[in-house]
Amino acid sequence: MRSVVTIGGGTGQYTLLSGLKRFPVHLTAIVSMADDGGSTGMLRDELGVLPPGDIRQCLVALSESELVMRELFNYRFDRGGLSGHNFGNIFLSALEKITGSFEDAVRVSSAVLAVRGEVIPVTTESVSLLGGQDGELCGENAINEGPLDNPECLRLKPEAYANPKAVRAIENAELIIIGPGNLYCSIIPNLLVHGISEAINRSRATVVYNCNLMTKAGHTDGFGVTEFAGEIEKHIGAGRIDYVTYNDRIPAPELLERYANEGQVILPPEGGVITGLAAKLLPAPLLGSDRYVQKSGDPIRRTLIRHDSDALATLIVRNCLGGL
Amino acid sequence: MRSVVTIGGGTGQYTLLSGLKRFPVHLTAIVSMADDGGSTGMLRDELGVLPPGDIRQCLVALSESELVMRELFNYRFDRGGLSGHNFGNIFLSALEKITGSFEDAVRVSSAVLAVRGEVIPVTTESVSLLGGQDGELCGENAINEGPLDNPECLRLKPEAYANPKAVRAIENAELIIIGPGNLYCSIIPNLLVHGISEAINRSRATVVYNCNLMTKAGHTDGFGVTEFAGEIEKHIGAGRIDYVTYNDRIPAPELLERYANEGQVILPPEGGVITGLAAKLLPAPLLGSDRYVQKSGDPIRRTLIRHDSDALATLIVRNCLGGL
Repeated sequence: MRSVVTIGGGTGQYTLLSGLKRFPVHLTAIVSMADDGGSTGMLRDELGVLPPGDIRQCLVALSESELVMRELFNYRFDRGGLSGHNFGNIFLSALEKITGSFEDAVRVSSAVLAVRGEVIPVTTESVSLLGGQDGELCGENAINEGPLDNPECLRLKPEAYANPKAVRAIENAELIIIGPGNLYCSIIPNLLVHGISEAINRSRATVVYNCNLMTKAGHTDGFGVTEFAGEIEKHIGAGRIDYVTYNDRIPAPELLERYANEGQVILPPEGGVITGLAAKLLPAPLLGSDRYVQKSGDPIRRTLIRHDSDALATLIVRNCLGGL
Repeated sequence: MRSVVTIGGGTGQYTLLSGLKRFPVHLTAIVSMADDGGSTGMLRDELGVLPPGDIRQCLVALSESELVMRELFNYRFDRGGLSGHNFGNIFLSALEKITGSFEDAVRVSSAVLAVRGEVIPVTTESVSLLGGQDGELCGENAINEGPLDNPECLRLKPEAYANPKAVRAIENAELIIIGPGNLYCSIIPNLLVHGISEAINRSRATVVYNCNLMTKAGHTDGFGVTEFAGEIEKHIGAGRIDYVTYNDRIPAPELLERYANEGQVILPPEGGVITGLAAKLLPAPLLGSDRYVQKSGDPIRRTLIRHDSDALATLIVRNCLGGL
């Protein structure tokens, strides 16, 4: 079976994996470990565990167990002392405490959820994302909430080294898919881990970048596809992206307005002409029809517009993994 | 396979089931639902769920899954906002919230834990144990902590009706095993559920009662085997118990002393001559060699002396289920 590696974190990777799961490929999800918001942040602070949230989303996306188990792992308590906590995060954290190993916790969870493929933390070191010239922005959650003036200052503390399993998966991949996801808080934190960008750069795999649907205020204002992809190539090497997917349909006006109120605008066709990229462009209608509704008890504000997981996966598999 | 039903709750039932699991019988554990202490009590109060604690112990006892899963279900958080909570309780409560049914939660948990046999809540109604003439003692935990002057006043509020699955299991059983466990807080609350005592009384099953190892201050002071068994027969009918097992070995002096300091004394041979019981007596060395150590984060004080699960199960199977 052909080896496909995804690199990301958060809901973007969940959406991508949910779509890719339907194809007969071997999937490996490499997941950011800089998350420190919401339930994940509480568990990191209180129990000293590694961040479970993004890993949990990937496990659920690749799960072939019955629906109730997938619902269970995504269940969020909205009352009492457990309020804000996500069941799957508690599951992973308790397992890490018992086994003493986050990787063992992921392995056991994978078995319980009947996961097809593999979910690999990009590093097994406990890291924080720092921003600002003097590291004055501390933590992914803090960076996510405010403006980010100097993205080039983003770094991990302490410096982290890649999980060897992640490097091996990248080296053996036929296709590497980066994004979609929060550019500076979910995607690039993977590329800041020593050994990851280098492995992508030297791998013979085809590289696809899934551009975001919208910009994010204070982070990617005014960005078009070129700027998004350019930020990725700063890490993995100019010209290393072979394909860029992006949405070419406009969402409903009321949704756009709601986004605009938060300083977010949709990417091309409004975003201008796409130039300066060596990558082949793959425009397609990629907007999901399900709109996310903020859930009670969720301490993190989530994006409303999502990719259509089937459309995205089909676009990639047809164009970048010819012959499936 | 021959049908064996256990009736109880708490650690006593866990110990019994752990031993019985090794024999080729079909096990059904009927579990008290009056628990409201510790992690269970918090979840009942905050989430409005049914009490998961005793059910969880039975699931773990009957689990044939790998050790780490059994450890996970018994794992207790000892720090942060989750402190005092038991993972398995959180698991059952989250599933109850998702499915809307405690029985479905137990069914899914049984599958995850590869449970051999069945675990059945004695009732699926939300009940509290009341004590005192005017119900001034409210809640199993409160009753457990203090003296209980009028055990005959114990009742459930609201009056509860038996889970039909529990009644069916009792009717079809070849052997019904009651206890060991906290007499007034874990065992008798099962018999207060309308339909349970009646089903035991009319069932053609052999009935075994496992007498406690020690008395409990304020509850069973001065009790011997006769008094313990007599309290059970007040509910299921005089002479209905066919066999009574009890321990005939004395534990180490330092342990006895520690117990005596809490007003607890060991049962016969110190407890006097056993008379007035129609049941056949099965004395044996039943003390477990593992002494319980109070765990960090556990909000409930547990008994130190436990039954030896193998010795107890072997004694019962050999004597009461001839031919295995």
